Amino acid sequence: MSVLVVGSIALDTVKTPVEEHADLLGGSASYAALSASFFSPVRLVGIVGHDFPASEFDFWKSRKIDSEGVQQASGKTFRWSGEYSWDLNTRETRSIALNVFETFKPALPESYRQTDFVLLANIAPSLQTHVLDQMERPRFVVADTMDLWIETTRDDLDALLPRVDLLIVNDSEAREMTKETSLIKAGRKIREFGPRYVAIKKGEHGALLFGDGDQFFSCGAYPLEDIRDPTGAGDTFAGGMAGYLAGTVKKVHFNDLRKAMIYGSVLASFCVEAFSLERLRKLTIEEINQRYEMFKLMSQFELPA
Amino acid sequence: MSVLVVGSIALDTVKTPVEEHADLLGGSASYAALSASFFSPVRLVGIVGHDFPASEFDFWKSRKIDSEGVQQASGKTFRWSGEYSWDLNTRETRSIALNVFETFKPALPESYRQTDFVLLANIAPSLQTHVLDQMERPRFVVADTMDLWIETTRDDLDALLPRVDLLIVNDSEAREMTKETSLIKAGRKIREFGPRYVAIKKGEHGALLFGDGDQFFSCGAYPLEDIRDPTGAGDTFAGGMAGYLAGTVKKVHFNDLRKAMIYGSVLASFCVEAFSLERLRKLTIEEINQRYEMFKLMSQFELPA
Repeated sequence: MSVLVVGSIALDTVKTPVEEHADLLGGSASYAALSASFFSPVRLVGIVGHDFPASEFDFWKSRKIDSEGVQQASGKTFRWSGEYSWDLNTRETRSIALNVFETFKPALPESYRQTDFVLLANIAPSLQTHVLDQMERPRFVVADTMDLWIETTRDDLDALLPRVDLLIVNDSEAREMTKETSLIKAGRKIREFGPRYVAIKKGEHGALLFGDGDQFFSCGAYPLEDIRDPTGAGDTFAGGMAGYLAGTVKKVHFNDLRKAMIYGSVLASFCVEAFSLERLRKLTIEEINQRYEMFKLMSQFELPA
Repeated sequence: MSVLVVGSIALDTVKTPVEEHADLLGGSASYAALSASFFSPVRLVGIVGHDFPASEFDFWKSRKIDSEGVQQASGKTFRWSGEYSWDLNTRETRSIALNVFETFKPALPESYRQTDFVLLANIAPSLQTHVLDQMERPRFVVADTMDLWIETTRDDLDALLPRVDLLIVNDSEAREMTKETSLIKAGRKIREFGPRYVAIKKGEHGALLFGDGDQFFSCGAYPLEDIRDPTGAGDTFAGGMAGYLAGTVKKVHFNDLRKAMIYGSVLASFCVEAFSLERLRKLTIEEINQRYEMFKLMSQFELPA
């Protein structure tokens, strides 16, 4: 089954303590769509400007990514520039130019309206809702968000949450949403806001998954010694989860979400090994499955002797 | 097989944002010994003062804890007082009185010298070494340490490390020892200092285990909504690991250490549910095994449908 992915498509300038690169493909939907496409066909929704490289449309075509829903408007593509701290754990936005994104109002192509799985990648909750409004009863809705929307458009976010099956947030966002310091309490409390399932990403410490009652799953992060650029890791995680579910599962159960979360983690671990989408572009499903198996081995309490 | 446990025995005063309790049994050896005793007989080494409650000796006798190695000196028992931050994540030492601990020079009873497993719980590395010097070729040596010794007696610690099979540190200590921000790099680097195996505790984020080559194990923490007093969690973790190994394993392999680390985590998760050793005193092996199984379930990537 296909997954519809909506989010931002951007040209990024990224500075780490070691290097700086400009005009890189970025944006939540770019990462999420490519990540999801390893598991299922993707229907991409977004907007780009006249300066957007045509080669990216060719690349999407070469993968299972339908870009009929990507508007090309006159004006410039959304641009973001950020700089990471010495340990890559925090980042500062140096500049942001919404450009064509400022007036973006996603209109779904007719062919997209019946898509069973939806990933509302990180954009304003009002746009996420607007996309959802145009769909005919999707089976499973995954949504990502960020601190900005929690702080500035909380009402919009709260209105969206009851329509979401799986909400993905990071640890600080979970604490901010709930005013709880315990992530266990925070995860359970977010479920009361509407989403049936909640995934909390903890960066180098892995992720937590909450479901009905005492359904709970916890995993570490795949151990990486060197991280080159953390940009897009969260979007890639969300894309991997949604893509795995769309490509593999008819009716989603908690145990499917466990595997989905691991695939999301695996995809994110590849993402940060290079700038932009460079590592993901070269990635193969064999490499993904190999790392999945390694990761499983590293997390198993008991192994046969 | 037995495990020898040496460390501090203290009377603690602990203040959390919610409550304060005085004259509680504490100290690294108290926690570690009781935790280990669920799995194997313990030979306890330490020192207490004339003010130490006789009831504790009775309690040890009622468990598999041999206290022949606990000196009772004239003078007062070691006392520590600490206060936790609002989120229980950091603590400040309010006062410390070494008392009888100041001149402590552990002398092993003859019956202790041939003990196969040793846990050098958190005390000065020179004392840990002194105990090890009196032993006849133990099979497996576990050592715990803390920031204080890394900062003030690093040479003593470095001299001890090549004699240690498993070193247990927390995340900030691992970073401090190695000047590495990546815990993956830090764990591998500590192994170069001597210990064959290294466990890094990450509190609410679980723990990492490093062995030869690419031997690696990662686990989350058992999810707890309410923590009452974090004091002793690390000592309890170390005691659980060492006790499980001593009680279960002839020759320690990496896969045994996985299970040991989980048992250590489980014991620690009980420890923080109450002040001092109150929860551990009432704990049963059935409760431990039940939580182990729950924890395993919560961490499994794939479950049979």
